[in-house]
Amino acid sequence: MRPQILLFGDSITQQSFRSGGWGAAVADIYSRKVDVVLRGYGGYNTRWALFLLHHIFPLVSATPPVAVTIFFGANDAALLGGTGKKQHVPVNEYKENLRRIVQHIKNLSRNTLVVLITPPPIDQQGRREFARSQYGDKASESPDRTNEVTGAYAEECVNLAKELGLPSINLWSKMQENEGWQKKFLSDGLHLTPEGNAVVSQEVIKIFDEAGFSDLPYDFPQHSEIDGENPEKAFLQQCAAV
Amino acid sequence: MRPQILLFGDSITQQSFRSGGWGAAVADIYSRKVDVVLRGYGGYNTRWALFLLHHIFPLVSATPPVAVTIFFGANDAALLGGTGKKQHVPVNEYKENLRRIVQHIKNLSRNTLVVLITPPPIDQQGRREFARSQYGDKASESPDRTNEVTGAYAEECVNLAKELGLPSINLWSKMQENEGWQKKFLSDGLHLTPEGNAVVSQEVIKIFDEAGFSDLPYDFPQHSEIDGENPEKAFLQQCAAV
Repeated sequence: MRPQILLFGDSITQQSFRSGGWGAAVADIYSRKVDVVLRGYGGYNTRWALFLLHHIFPLVSATPPVAVTIFFGANDAALLGGTGKKQHVPVNEYKENLRRIVQHIKNLSRNTLVVLITPPPIDQQGRREFARSQYGDKASESPDRTNEVTGAYAEECVNLAKELGLPSINLWSKMQENEGWQKKFLSDGLHLTPEGNAVVSQEVIKIFDEAGFSDLPYDFPQHSEIDGENPEKAFLQQCAAV
Repeated sequence: MRPQILLFGDSITQQSFRSGGWGAAVADIYSRKVDVVLRGYGGYNTRWALFLLHHIFPLVSATPPVAVTIFFGANDAALLGGTGKKQHVPVNEYKENLRRIVQHIKNLSRNTLVVLITPPPIDQQGRREFARSQYGDKASESPDRTNEVTGAYAEECVNLAKELGLPSINLWSKMQENEGWQKKFLSDGLHLTPEGNAVVSQEVIKIFDEAGFSDLPYDFPQHSEIDGENPEKAFLQQCAAV
């Protein structure tokens, strides 16, 4: 069995195989070495993610993933007074839910590399424009999310990673270091543009490469290693171990 | 276990998760329903692909894929007199190799949907320009591939699909129906641009949808089905079957 990387998260993970998406970029860079498994659930918060844990990460699995990205918080941080109030999860519960997800995966296999990713920042003007484009005059005047509140979730995500000694990506901070992050990285004030996806894939690949993933062997010979007259030679050497 | 679609082929499959790639588009459209498994091998012809068959499609597999795309021929059709002569496979052997690949998969499971995809057309001028951009004056003057020869391989691929009653995509013909296909669909006279990738993903998804793949159930509840006050209800109903 080839190693697997599992991407667990909300819509920003579910959409990560669209054109320019960060998940597809990870699958591309480790192709012929690792399989990337998409487990993104649009609209989900960490409370609902807990219901999936035993299905997505069964404790009897013979081959636990070599790595898992956990990328929630954008919906947990929806405001109680906004259109996404159903999705709201208090920030303390968000942190504890993340902790339960990590512990479950670590129970499965201590060697699985778990990476925590914070929600991206929120462009409130972008959210308003998006709501108006969808609902016109009927668009709600109260914001569904604010950048400040989402920042508090990002902070707790990073705090938990430090507590547990896990690598993390503070997307909320990282994106805001760039002038014009609001339109450059976000398509509707929340979801990612191709440039925003590139920020995620670069950070994820950096962590994976530090863990040695780029040094993993190819599954089968590169075509340059195959002797056209005696192709079986290259395959006999390399396929025995697969 | 979630159903799997396996993409088996050469570099045009291996690169199919790059930005705008056809494999990622298939993974995106069936996300939460089907896992797409990438098995693309740059530079490979059907002769070398045979060495991988028992590794990629083990006969003892408990869960054979619901569908496999077989997408070879671009390297088989390399000319004996060109830089890719090592990759050349005679057209009759190409057809018989494809037949062996199909038969192996059908032995695994008669229900697996096997789709044959022909190589794309060749833009010889694009190949020359690419060789010059790589090797300058040292670029070979003799073509590595011609559109006519590749067309003969495409024809045998489609003939085999008809013989075996399999769906096929004649990319060689389909792309040439479009004015300016040479630059529109091909980046170096052989590999695909994002527009060329879109032709493949549209055709593949059309065949999969006709086979009912878009009607496959989602793995877990859509967030709109989740009651914020009683989330367990939606999960109890839908997760029992997973």
